Amino acid sequence: MKQELKRHVYLKMKDREEARRLFLEAFDLKGRLGRETVRVEEALGRVSAGPVLALDSSPRHHLAAMDGVALMAEKTFGARPGRPVQLVRGVDYRLVNTGHVLPPETNAVVMVEKVIISEEGPDSQGRERISLEEPAFPWQHVRKLGEDLVATELIIPAGTRIGPYELGALVAGGVYELEVMARPKVAIIPTGTEVIDLDQARQGPVEPGQVVEFNSLILAGMVEQLGGEPVRHPPLPDDFSSLKELLSRVVEEGCDLVIVNAGSSSGTTDYTAHAVKELGEVLVHGVTIMPGKPTVLGRIGRTPIMGNPGYPVSAVISFEEFAAPLLAGMLGTPLWSRPKVEARPVAALPSKLGQEEYIRVKLGRVGDQTVAVPLHRGAGSITSLTRADGVVRVPKLTEGLEAGKPVAAELLKPLEEIEGTIVAIGSHDNTLDLLADLLRRHDARFYLTSGNVGSLGGLKALARAQAHLAGSHLLDPETGLYNVPQIKRLLQGLPLKVVRLVLREQGLILPAGNPKGLKGLVDLAEKGLVFINRQAGSGTRILLDHYLAQAGLEADRIRGYEQEEYTHMAVAAAVLSGRADAGLGILAAARALGLEFIPLVQEDYQLVIPAEHYQTPKIQALLEVIGSPGFRAAVESLGGYSLEGSGKVVYEQ
Amino acid sequence: MKQELKRHVYLKMKDREEARRLFLEAFDLKGRLGRETVRVEEALGRVSAGPVLALDSSPRHHLAAMDGVALMAEKTFGARPGRPVQLVRGVDYRLVNTGHVLPPETNAVVMVEKVIISEEGPDSQGRERISLEEPAFPWQHVRKLGEDLVATELIIPAGTRIGPYELGALVAGGVYELEVMARPKVAIIPTGTEVIDLDQARQGPVEPGQVVEFNSLILAGMVEQLGGEPVRHPPLPDDFSSLKELLSRVVEEGCDLVIVNAGSSSGTTDYTAHAVKELGEVLVHGVTIMPGKPTVLGRIGRTPIMGNPGYPVSAVISFEEFAAPLLAGMLGTPLWSRPKVEARPVAALPSKLGQEEYIRVKLGRVGDQTVAVPLHRGAGSITSLTRADGVVRVPKLTEGLEAGKPVAAELLKPLEEIEGTIVAIGSHDNTLDLLADLLRRHDARFYLTSGNVGSLGGLKALARAQAHLAGSHLLDPETGLYNVPQIKRLLQGLPLKVVRLVLREQGLILPAGNPKGLKGLVDLAEKGLVFINRQAGSGTRILLDHYLAQAGLEADRIRGYEQEEYTHMAVAAAVLSGRADAGLGILAAARALGLEFIPLVQEDYQLVIPAEHYQTPKIQALLEVIGSPGFRAAVESLGGYSLEGSGKVVYEQ
Repeated sequence: MKQELKRHVYLKMKDREEARRLFLEAFDLKGRLGRETVRVEEALGRVSAGPVLALDSSPRHHLAAMDGVALMAEKTFGARPGRPVQLVRGVDYRLVNTGHVLPPETNAVVMVEKVIISEEGPDSQGRERISLEEPAFPWQHVRKLGEDLVATELIIPAGTRIGPYELGALVAGGVYELEVMARPKVAIIPTGTEVIDLDQARQGPVEPGQVVEFNSLILAGMVEQLGGEPVRHPPLPDDFSSLKELLSRVVEEGCDLVIVNAGSSSGTTDYTAHAVKELGEVLVHGVTIMPGKPTVLGRIGRTPIMGNPGYPVSAVISFEEFAAPLLAGMLGTPLWSRPKVEARPVAALPSKLGQEEYIRVKLGRVGDQTVAVPLHRGAGSITSLTRADGVVRVPKLTEGLEAGKPVAAELLKPLEEIEGTIVAIGSHDNTLDLLADLLRRHDARFYLTSGNVGSLGGLKALARAQAHLAGSHLLDPETGLYNVPQIKRLLQGLPLKVVRLVLREQGLILPAGNPKGLKGLVDLAEKGLVFINRQAGSGTRILLDHYLAQAGLEADRIRGYEQEEYTHMAVAAAVLSGRADAGLGILAAARALGLEFIPLVQEDYQLVIPAEHYQTPKIQALLEVIGSPGFRAAVESLGGYSLEGSGKVVYEQ
Repeated sequence: MKQELKRHVYLKMKDREEARRLFLEAFDLKGRLGRETVRVEEALGRVSAGPVLALDSSPRHHLAAMDGVALMAEKTFGARPGRPVQLVRGVDYRLVNTGHVLPPETNAVVMVEKVIISEEGPDSQGRERISLEEPAFPWQHVRKLGEDLVATELIIPAGTRIGPYELGALVAGGVYELEVMARPKVAIIPTGTEVIDLDQARQGPVEPGQVVEFNSLILAGMVEQLGGEPVRHPPLPDDFSSLKELLSRVVEEGCDLVIVNAGSSSGTTDYTAHAVKELGEVLVHGVTIMPGKPTVLGRIGRTPIMGNPGYPVSAVISFEEFAAPLLAGMLGTPLWSRPKVEARPVAALPSKLGQEEYIRVKLGRVGDQTVAVPLHRGAGSITSLTRADGVVRVPKLTEGLEAGKPVAAELLKPLEEIEGTIVAIGSHDNTLDLLADLLRRHDARFYLTSGNVGSLGGLKALARAQAHLAGSHLLDPETGLYNVPQIKRLLQGLPLKVVRLVLREQGLILPAGNPKGLKGLVDLAEKGLVFINRQAGSGTRILLDHYLAQAGLEADRIRGYEQEEYTHMAVAAAVLSGRADAGLGILAAARALGLEFIPLVQEDYQLVIPAEHYQTPKIQALLEVIGSPGFRAAVESLGGYSLEGSGKVVYEQ
């Protein structure tokens, strides 16, 4: 037992900057990659291996920059209105079009609009004549030889990633082939006895103990985007000697970076650090970043080795912080970076002192502020990256970020997407996901982002001007009204409209077939079964407490009352997985997962929209979608909803 | 004659927004492209054809989130320091590593660090025992089924460009194949009788009347980056019926956009608008943008046709404004956009009223301002795009931008590159280009940008705090000193250091072999030969005026005195091309183009660096490069330079 629970110890943890420095300085990055000559047609996305100088000037000759006539400017001196200069074709001028080489013995172009056909007709030899009423300046409307590039001038420096414009400049400078850096070859080795790859997953049912590996796909995609050549290996079981053997082989066959994914931590089957230590040198084991802490950075001979953690977000962050700059250093390209904006978190974000934490956020412009809505912080949540608009870093020496206090957010999406985002903070409903999808299809400029903080949290976010709208279904038991009493209390004086989105069935979500024969909440308490709750402040929680009070039940009579989830789907998933025997939620969630449902109440789910946002194009687009047949059909197919009065303003202040 | 000079008329010119609207609304963009199913391994960069829903939950089971022991939390209730709970392996707990499926009848994980091996050893049946000194909470350190994604939830909406993160999320959601939009097929037809393609250019010498076509390469690169499939056609001579025939054929064979490059204007051989009109409909001919005015937008049947102008910058802008949103509309992706920064032009930028002008600029951070240094404004200057850090738009209804007044600049390079840029405004010298290249190689974070406005202009830019340094070689004839008298006059009170860069030979640049037997400036005036001058305010111009005064020559005795260029290389190119018989410039420029040179003076070319910038890492890096053997060797190979005292501070205030 003792042995099996033994842990390898981390070397002294390093902070991000130091870890990066140790890793990058351990290698001759600039001298590592080979070079190859490619035709300019194949150079898109490649990186120049050296400065590229123009072989030809551009233009290669003096060229007409206008359609008109080419002539010696000196022949037009003295021309003025009423005293035109007469010129003879072939003798004094020639016709040219834009781009033509300037004929010999000419040094200017007069544009056609200024040319007057001579009234006297052709001269005695039949040559056409024109007259000009103003003089031309030497070299007017001429693109002069070398105006853009003179032969020998620099077209692009070394380390330039060649984009479409560069292709043009190279050819303009007479360069049809050029030397580029070879693509760095990156071996990616997924590990884990439980891990299977996509081919295996396609062949048969995935067994409960198996995990379909996808980090290697993410890492390969990132390598490709940086200009490298990923080589994905099949998953390797957790076995020290196999790992050692494969590492030796891969290094021997030649590659520029090896990434071992998972097994970089200090668990019993975390062999990466050990294997690297035996074959070479561990430079860093453990970095004070979160996610990404258990990163291993090392070398085997002159080959860089990275062991990155198994959670996808950790793997991504560890790659971006250490592998990306390494590859950029090899290619000689500037360090990969993301634009930043100043954003204000909608809630406080506590974080562990001594670790730099990367929090993925949704961003939106509310009034003149950019607000940041934090996403799931678990390192296992790959969707926290796909859904994120940005990443906020909580510095190592702070205990978190304050609500409303500006921080820098690194952008993962273009700023325009963020300008087009509707920030909905409040209660969760499955129809919001439908709306998000339909809005996107209705007008590609607009996005709907929901922060699930419950109905009360939504109204409070509106009070702090941190959201464009709040989804809410707060029942006031005394009046039987939804939301209005709370709005009057929390949002006094804020002009707003309340729009009904849907009426929806709330009830008990139970396992399929209701094996324990549950009949209701009282029954639940009496049978001592396990409940899964929603978070405090959510409309559903308030509804539960209302029912418990009605039934005279104390909260501690309900086992699992303290187990909270943030969405209806999460409650349904808890029931599906056997974590709980029952939860309170909407019919749509139960139906989506094939669960049993005991209806309790039809409630009014509304959108609370401040007047200042109501007339904006994005909210108007959202209201159009709510009124559309597409939305109605999609909602009806979910089940458990009524669309009576949907889209109607039910209250205004 | 009359006929040959005849011009087609533009339809009424449209502004950018209206032109785009007319073009985009003429087609059923969303319904145009086919769909195809791809394996997730091949989906990088593709665009989702519809919303993609999770087929599996992620995680698919409850998983251990820590290495340690899995158990029923309820069995640990009551444990506290000094009163541990004893547990038996196989009965009460099982060992788990991170990522393992939670064993049946367990609901929590206790991390290994909290596990105490029981001092009493195994139980009577030889089963190991542990003790815990604190209770576990149900579901602690467990990644719950569906925590990241619940089956049926949305993974990505329609119109998502699939990046590395999305690949991971798709597999996490059990999606191994998905429907993506077909790549839009874009036919690119270069036209022009004078135009040859790269294959032809590689085969033989390019004749004077020929132009090597490269716009199709730029356009194809942009199509590729947007996710389309470019099809480059060989160049088509200017011939109306060939163009019509090819257009019909290409449309018939099926493609999603045809771009005819060049011939969109209203010249005698500009057939695009005509051909589209005969085969279909011209929607727009002429847009009030510059460059890019002669854009043609139309349709043949249901196929969009774009005729864009022949100048590369015009072709690029017209593509970006009209083709890019069209392709985005077909794919359902958000409109392509660039981040913006606020920048201050270092000089006034006059622009034509009634046209929206796109000015390419270099950007740099000087103090707390971003300054914009305008690049060559000619539409023929492809290097103005490759060298640019950003683009500033001058609105249609203004006559230009004011110096120092903030404007929005669209970024072409990452902001970090701009932060790392040294803005050198002032005199031009060939060694600055060397420095730029060597600095880049010395430290990939740093860039050197030169604005060639002459020595005086550079000192004035320092006075306005618009540059990090100024290259200057202003001779004070009275004292024989360089720069210092003018610095005292123009930069009084500004702490700065003056560093000698090089001593350089200035003299007369003449055609190879000096065919006209020129001996000097007086000789030039007497023979009535043509001179090419530098711009007012440049050190070289001031030097010329000094020599003319010494020789008692009036400026109007020098033919071509009013013809100005901005760099030594441009002067040399003017001599090379026969535009001028002589110019004043540095030996390095003459030698680069194999020209004759009559030395006149050795002058002191210095860098004037304000103290506030002197100690910054980027300037220090530049000074290191100036002191490096690499720089010395490169300068010596240019010829005409002395490095005596190079890098030394020659004056300080």
